[in-house]
Amino acid sequence: MAARFITFEGLDGSGKSTHLEGARAWLEARGLTCETTHEPGGTALGEALRGVFLDPVWGELDGKVEALLIFASRRQHLLEVIDPALAAGRHVLCDRFTDSTLAYQGYGRGVPLELLHRVDRLATGGRVPDHTLLFDLPAEQAQQRGRSPARHQRGEVDRLDREELAFYERVRRGYLELAAEAGGRYAVIDSVGSREATAAQVAAALESIFGAGR
Amino acid sequence: MAARFITFEGLDGSGKSTHLEGARAWLEARGLTCETTHEPGGTALGEALRGVFLDPVWGELDGKVEALLIFASRRQHLLEVIDPALAAGRHVLCDRFTDSTLAYQGYGRGVPLELLHRVDRLATGGRVPDHTLLFDLPAEQAQQRGRSPARHQRGEVDRLDREELAFYERVRRGYLELAAEAGGRYAVIDSVGSREATAAQVAAALESIFGAGR
Repeated sequence: MAARFITFEGLDGSGKSTHLEGARAWLEARGLTCETTHEPGGTALGEALRGVFLDPVWGELDGKVEALLIFASRRQHLLEVIDPALAAGRHVLCDRFTDSTLAYQGYGRGVPLELLHRVDRLATGGRVPDHTLLFDLPAEQAQQRGRSPARHQRGEVDRLDREELAFYERVRRGYLELAAEAGGRYAVIDSVGSREATAAQVAAALESIFGAGR
Repeated sequence: MAARFITFEGLDGSGKSTHLEGARAWLEARGLTCETTHEPGGTALGEALRGVFLDPVWGELDGKVEALLIFASRRQHLLEVIDPALAAGRHVLCDRFTDSTLAYQGYGRGVPLELLHRVDRLATGGRVPDHTLLFDLPAEQAQQRGRSPARHQRGEVDRLDREELAFYERVRRGYLELAAEAGGRYAVIDSVGSREATAAQVAAALESIFGAGR
């Protein structure tokens, strides 16, 4: 079979990075060679750019400036890492890709989706992964997994938390809308339960991609 | 009169930066307030990006990656420096702008002009300066002004110099083609003669922009 480009999407705290490692082990146990990578970053140039545009000194960057930088980094990632691996027959497991930009910058921050698609067409030719695993859970739960235990125990919820929560709810709804529109490419993984329950769904998704017989 | 956005273009060694300072003095002597700025860079974010993409560690960047980064930096420059100055009624004298990208990346390096125009439309809305002063001289002469005097006296010309010369000739021809196409916006300044002879042409160009009576 041709090498597959598979992305892992979801909120921070959704477990996607943990389960990407599990997926790598699943493939390797079946003799399938793969490469794991991540965005933002994924290349030395991308990491340098990430260092620049995540620097809080600029405040909130203009949406178009941010989109141009994100997609410059993404194109470099495709050219330098993803496409060479696929061409060499290695499956690619990638933590975040264009769907993250659509969900966070588009649905979350309100940058027009049409603008993001235009930059994407220019930068990557509108490149779409073969398969996407979306790790879905309520934003509040993802936020709690990320919050420090002490603060969580004190039950502190301040204005910033509430603003953040509304933002992450928009991102989550954006992801679900992307999944509904993309149809077959997406496997929505319910990430609310235990790690084992989630891992079982990941294995089922991989079996449907690579065949249960592997 | 509305504040004018005036760019200074040409090869390094063409005298454009020196004469930009002269133009500032010309305006100030007539009580016209102006702001001077430059590309690449011109903002803190732009300088940081410049530091990233001029780093020789990446080798020669893909043309699209480079264009996305250049125009991200240019948009920030417009939003943060150029447009606020114009809105406040200050004329803007800018050392290099989009014409530099068309001449160097387009004509010089062979990145398709249509691609550069597409990124430009997305990033700046296809923003064009009100006036452009092009400092024109043969590439060989610009190269000699830039070369160290000792090497110049020894008459050394190596392969790299010849390759560079061919590149800068393409850039020069590109600038002249842009000037021919843009018509009234461009004043082509013959930069071969003495600094005084060039300054007289700059003053004439400024008089035609701002009126001889100022």
